[in-house]
Amino acid sequence: MNYSSKLLADAVSEFTKLPGIGEKTALRLVLHLLKQDEDKVKYFGDAVTRMRNEIKFCKTCNNVSDHELCEICGSHHRDHAIVCLVETIRDVIAIENTNIYKGTYHVLGGVISPIDGIGPDKLNIDSLVTRVKSGEVKEIIMAISPTIEGDTTIFYVSKKLKDLNVNITTIARGISFGGELEYTDEMTLARSIATRLPYENYLVKNSN
Amino acid sequence: MNYSSKLLADAVSEFTKLPGIGEKTALRLVLHLLKQDEDKVKYFGDAVTRMRNEIKFCKTCNNVSDHELCEICGSHHRDHAIVCLVETIRDVIAIENTNIYKGTYHVLGGVISPIDGIGPDKLNIDSLVTRVKSGEVKEIIMAISPTIEGDTTIFYVSKKLKDLNVNITTIARGISFGGELEYTDEMTLARSIATRLPYENYLVKNSN
Repeated sequence: MNYSSKLLADAVSEFTKLPGIGEKTALRLVLHLLKQDEDKVKYFGDAVTRMRNEIKFCKTCNNVSDHELCEICGSHHRDHAIVCLVETIRDVIAIENTNIYKGTYHVLGGVISPIDGIGPDKLNIDSLVTRVKSGEVKEIIMAISPTIEGDTTIFYVSKKLKDLNVNITTIARGISFGGELEYTDEMTLARSIATRLPYENYLVKNSN
Repeated sequence: MNYSSKLLADAVSEFTKLPGIGEKTALRLVLHLLKQDEDKVKYFGDAVTRMRNEIKFCKTCNNVSDHELCEICGSHHRDHAIVCLVETIRDVIAIENTNIYKGTYHVLGGVISPIDGIGPDKLNIDSLVTRVKSGEVKEIIMAISPTIEGDTTIFYVSKKLKDLNVNITTIARGISFGGELEYTDEMTLARSIATRLPYENYLVKNSN
């Protein structure tokens, strides 16, 4: 598109680099910012830059943090014997928002995917092994997407942890609450029958 | 949502202030930026702040510009006798992208809308009258949305210009190219019949 201002064109072009933002949306966002007060827009720009420059990754679990150790790893109210293994920071946020889980996390940074050039060496697997070897960890909950890559990753990590004294579990796969049997794929349905639970376990679904 | 970093939460919160961006989208955008190089993110933040701080509005037509006079008003290749009256900067960009119009613009800054507290005094109408009085302008093309507020604005502006020696036209209302008669609303269809053109005029639609 043809903008009569290079400053405007530049800001629009920066927004179009974001995922899912096309040129028309970018223009709408930029024109919205143009109508705001100067100090508000400066705060927006600074917040983004500051976030990127100052954010740290927790030295224990690789979660984002404002300090060397994240709030979760540094908390005395969390159970440090349980570690939930997740792919990304987004998964940590999703699980934290359930307000149910009181253990800690370990962020892998992805899953093993040879097609994308991601081998085990690019993931935070060694730091997990070190963490387990320290002796504090009693259980690893694999909260990894049930895809081929995810299952490969679970298999790889569990092999690495095999000889260490740690209990490995995976989050339950099955039909979502509110989901209908009829529209569930065969794989999920088959696994949910194979891994069926005693009814008493179903009832305690909301306690930790 | 519960983020383990205030820096992250702050950046997400800034993005949610943009139109059409919810918290999940904002998080996706921020996590995307977090994966980029520091200097790229700094450039993003700076481009936005700079755009807001340094952008100017053309003293003639109120279009955005990097200078006192916008590229269009300052160009010798444009016909300064024709002024296209539009609501917003976005309309200028839309018309410029057709590559057909070679006149100049005047950005009103909105339309008269008493329900939103926008009276004629909040729009750039006086500067248009001054422009016309200077004698250079021979034609004003009203390119205003065909809404009640738009029609009110066209009526108000045309009354203000009544005694000045200027030709007032409006852009054609009708059925879009590719549009189907069957799905066109009655109002548009009725007006397109009432304002029908000789077939020769239809043929020159792509020349200026």
